[in-house]
Amino acid sequence: MAARGEFARAGYDGATLRAIAREAEVDQALLHHYYGTKEQLFVAAVGFPALPSELVAHVLAAERAHMGEMLLRLLLQIWDTPENRAQVTAILRSALTNEPAMTMLRQFMTATVLVAVARGLDIPDGNYRAALVFSQIVGLGLGRYVFRIPPLADADHAEIVAAVGPTLQRYLTGAIGTQSIVATPPVTM
Amino acid sequence: MAARGEFARAGYDGATLRAIAREAEVDQALLHHYYGTKEQLFVAAVGFPALPSELVAHVLAAERAHMGEMLLRLLLQIWDTPENRAQVTAILRSALTNEPAMTMLRQFMTATVLVAVARGLDIPDGNYRAALVFSQIVGLGLGRYVFRIPPLADADHAEIVAAVGPTLQRYLTGAIGTQSIVATPPVTM
Repeated sequence: MAARGEFARAGYDGATLRAIAREAEVDQALLHHYYGTKEQLFVAAVGFPALPSELVAHVLAAERAHMGEMLLRLLLQIWDTPENRAQVTAILRSALTNEPAMTMLRQFMTATVLVAVARGLDIPDGNYRAALVFSQIVGLGLGRYVFRIPPLADADHAEIVAAVGPTLQRYLTGAIGTQSIVATPPVTM
Repeated sequence: MAARGEFARAGYDGATLRAIAREAEVDQALLHHYYGTKEQLFVAAVGFPALPSELVAHVLAAERAHMGEMLLRLLLQIWDTPENRAQVTAILRSALTNEPAMTMLRQFMTATVLVAVARGLDIPDGNYRAALVFSQIVGLGLGRYVFRIPPLADADHAEIVAAVGPTLQRYLTGAIGTQSIVATPPVTM
């Protein structure tokens, strides 16, 4: 698929529908008609099991106090399918073994998740918060589905939500530090 | 190195100093003299940047309320060296790309960390707690040092400790669920 090559070459940020259409020798309008946005095309090209912007929209639409739990329940649902797990593992593996795949994935996550969460939460350090959430999610997925550490792999959804939900909730909306990570200019009164 | 082959073949649990000595055609007492325990031999063979049992001992020796922070500070110190980071990344990559390496690593972590933490904390669901800690640590390491997501990669130790320390602390000693993960027999009064 031409899209995969273009994303790997130019990164997620640098790739354009125009360049992909040219590469694939198809009309750009046709490409857009079949795949939609750049995010949708990327998701189709690398076999990402969900559309991050949709996940983010669900989470941001939840009651503020339940965003962490909402996110976790959605992810556990996605991870429940063996095919989705295999896909996520394959994507992680390729990111760990080659630098362009890593760059592409980092740019994709930043563009579709970190920025959207930061904007949606309307908190100054929103993208630091989103990165913290990312760290717990990736680690949970690895520990439960890839490493399959027995107590994590065998826990049911309710147990995982009870243990990890509050972590995600705190990262999203709670106290995460003694000071803000974002350097803010001093305010003169 | 003969040890690496034996660990990959038999897993961490199945490998013995005796088999490794035979494979390497050296005396078992000599092997023990130079490398010490099976854990130490494994750490030397795969280039693990720290001796897990030492980390665990440091954490368990800390005041109960500061165990999470202690663990995180120790890890950040270890990760601070580029060589250690490269080692950890290489180990993760090999675990993700081949099943025997994954099994070996899972058994190693279970034997040296999960069991020791569970015993040391003296809490019934100690190894579930250790697995939760593992999930946050692996995700943090990946997000900060491998993916290098900007807000996580650029945060200083104090910021990371403020954000992630309470997570590890709660996983180790706090409330992690509505019920214990360990099935306990009903107590009749």
